[in-house]
Amino acid sequence: MDAAKPSPRPVVAVIGGGQLARMMQESAIALGIELRALVEATNGSAGQVIVNAPAGAPTDINTLAQIIAEADVLTFEHEHIPGETFDACAEQLPIHPHRDALLYAQDKLAMRARLTELDIPCPAWARIDTPEDLHAFGETHGWPIIVKTPRGGYDGRGVRLVNDATGANDWLAVGGPLLAEARVPFTGEVAALLARRPSGEVRSWPVAQTEQKDGVCAVVTAPAPNLTEELAQQAQDIAATIARKLDVTGVLAVEMFVAPGEDGQPRLLVNELAMRPHNSGHWTIDGAVTSQFEQHLRAVLDLPLGDTAMRTPVAVMVNLLGSAHEDPSCGLAAAMQAAPAAKIHLYGKEVRPGRKLGHVTVCSDSLEWSRTTAHSALDALAGVQERP
Amino acid sequence: MDAAKPSPRPVVAVIGGGQLARMMQESAIALGIELRALVEATNGSAGQVIVNAPAGAPTDINTLAQIIAEADVLTFEHEHIPGETFDACAEQLPIHPHRDALLYAQDKLAMRARLTELDIPCPAWARIDTPEDLHAFGETHGWPIIVKTPRGGYDGRGVRLVNDATGANDWLAVGGPLLAEARVPFTGEVAALLARRPSGEVRSWPVAQTEQKDGVCAVVTAPAPNLTEELAQQAQDIAATIARKLDVTGVLAVEMFVAPGEDGQPRLLVNELAMRPHNSGHWTIDGAVTSQFEQHLRAVLDLPLGDTAMRTPVAVMVNLLGSAHEDPSCGLAAAMQAAPAAKIHLYGKEVRPGRKLGHVTVCSDSLEWSRTTAHSALDALAGVQERP
Repeated sequence: MDAAKPSPRPVVAVIGGGQLARMMQESAIALGIELRALVEATNGSAGQVIVNAPAGAPTDINTLAQIIAEADVLTFEHEHIPGETFDACAEQLPIHPHRDALLYAQDKLAMRARLTELDIPCPAWARIDTPEDLHAFGETHGWPIIVKTPRGGYDGRGVRLVNDATGANDWLAVGGPLLAEARVPFTGEVAALLARRPSGEVRSWPVAQTEQKDGVCAVVTAPAPNLTEELAQQAQDIAATIARKLDVTGVLAVEMFVAPGEDGQPRLLVNELAMRPHNSGHWTIDGAVTSQFEQHLRAVLDLPLGDTAMRTPVAVMVNLLGSAHEDPSCGLAAAMQAAPAAKIHLYGKEVRPGRKLGHVTVCSDSLEWSRTTAHSALDALAGVQERP
Repeated sequence: MDAAKPSPRPVVAVIGGGQLARMMQESAIALGIELRALVEATNGSAGQVIVNAPAGAPTDINTLAQIIAEADVLTFEHEHIPGETFDACAEQLPIHPHRDALLYAQDKLAMRARLTELDIPCPAWARIDTPEDLHAFGETHGWPIIVKTPRGGYDGRGVRLVNDATGANDWLAVGGPLLAEARVPFTGEVAALLARRPSGEVRSWPVAQTEQKDGVCAVVTAPAPNLTEELAQQAQDIAATIARKLDVTGVLAVEMFVAPGEDGQPRLLVNELAMRPHNSGHWTIDGAVTSQFEQHLRAVLDLPLGDTAMRTPVAVMVNLLGSAHEDPSCGLAAAMQAAPAAKIHLYGKEVRPGRKLGHVTVCSDSLEWSRTTAHSALDALAGVQERP
């Protein structure tokens, strides 16, 4: 025990005050871990439920100092952590994930280059500095192509479908390279989720299927219903390779396309990485023995990882994206009435169109029943009368 | 929506800052409910994890006013709520459970009298005002007998085995009547747990078996392994009758003895009532679709109740009573290593001999495996090398 530390109770400091830090707190409470957060607003999603949660930007080192004092580890609920924050904290306490690992979740160009080095299957891609680069890529791989800003995007932001060489001129004018990717004729999307400890232990959850709506995750089904056992194993192996080779610590989510290969057989292509609990893993709160939030806390504290087995054969998670109500909680009674077995999660956020306000998970023996029940709870929660 | 209330988000105020309020907060976070607590100490079990948690006694009306302002309901995590607290709050917001119901969880004499009126099976009992009363009861039912202080007891306190008429003289000298009960030659103990809404809906969890150690709950197994279906149904019916007849709102736990009747067949006798989440229901956090903490919040807010089905065939919960470690969290790594499937819960409390510091639940298909795994996790958590 550190003599300067008043209690040997584990203390985790997290940067970010959204729903991921909020849900970490549920697990921290259970395990007797003290969670502190540097939040965007003290009355925000995590600030509402974490006692030591001062407001400040990730670069606000003075405020950050309040939560890392005597903490055991610093972690993040989003990737937007500048190098200066690492510099300021690195001598004081362990930081997980490491700066060198997090780079590959921050910078999509760096990620593509590194995964390609590791022979991990990706869509065709190129670094784009000029409209000419874009032209060449489009002519080679066929228009339209996907163009992404390497940094700062999430939930479909910073991603664009481009039809010709001029389609990213505004982004190029701002400066910095872009990432171009060939469109993948995918038949499905899956996410491989795991956690890794600094000392090396890795545990993977069953691979889930993800369904996007307007570039935002809408439905997650675990285990992925149409994935062969062989592809599921491949997906877990790819994620484990990435975790080990990139020295990822904490939770890693690897989003992948399932697309026909040259032989017509389905194969996997890595789409995105996240080094933190991820929307594709929210089902683990109710559907797995150990949730991704508990596992992230265990992993960054270098504690032994928990069992990742499912509690029931099937879990379906649906996101609450916007609400017809004044406040998301106005739909609670209707959702509870519609589906007593639905696990309802609200993030304490105000309604904005399309905003992630919460999620609903239904676990059972039946895919069809879980799906139907989750959607009826969601519709009731959102105040939607009939599904479109 | 109340015009005075800044957000329509549900707000629950709870009196008490122990582990029950702490565990309520886990469910409150998930449902987007704001939980506030009047706590014994701001750095105590619940105060560590609830943002709005001022310290004060249940009689400290000024401090209580801070948490009930604009709250939707006031509830409790213990029974020691004086009438003046109800008086001070009753006009401002609903209180669940009601004062008239809570009386029967506060006063064991009142409880015995009321249950007897309702023809609910209890051990033989009597009100004791003098040593002569005690003498008469002991001679009729056979020494030793159980003597209880009607108010203020918990976890074996305020309960005594008495061998003769003088055995409760010290308590009688303090004044007030005592409760005498005949010793029940029980073969087992079970707890029936349910929740009831103000509007009447009742949902019961499967009846659990409880095992005490030195008068304190040590092991809970759900469903109760040696209970016939008929007795389990009877136990649920008894609890539902008590809930309806006493107008209980929120969670009700009814502890019962299983003892041979005059015909030698096992029958149920009510031992104790609790009108709040109860130790015998901690298994529901990991073992049931809806935990007792979530259900209590739903019930006191008069929201539709959740599914009480078990997630797996068996759940075994063991209490961490004291620890060989300086702090209970010092055993976390060993417990996680010993049993990756164990759900570990620590309450943020300091070690004292025999104190309830946390619990461990293991859910599986196998009673034997769940029990063995729970105990090995518990021994590792407590720092015990070998089981006594």
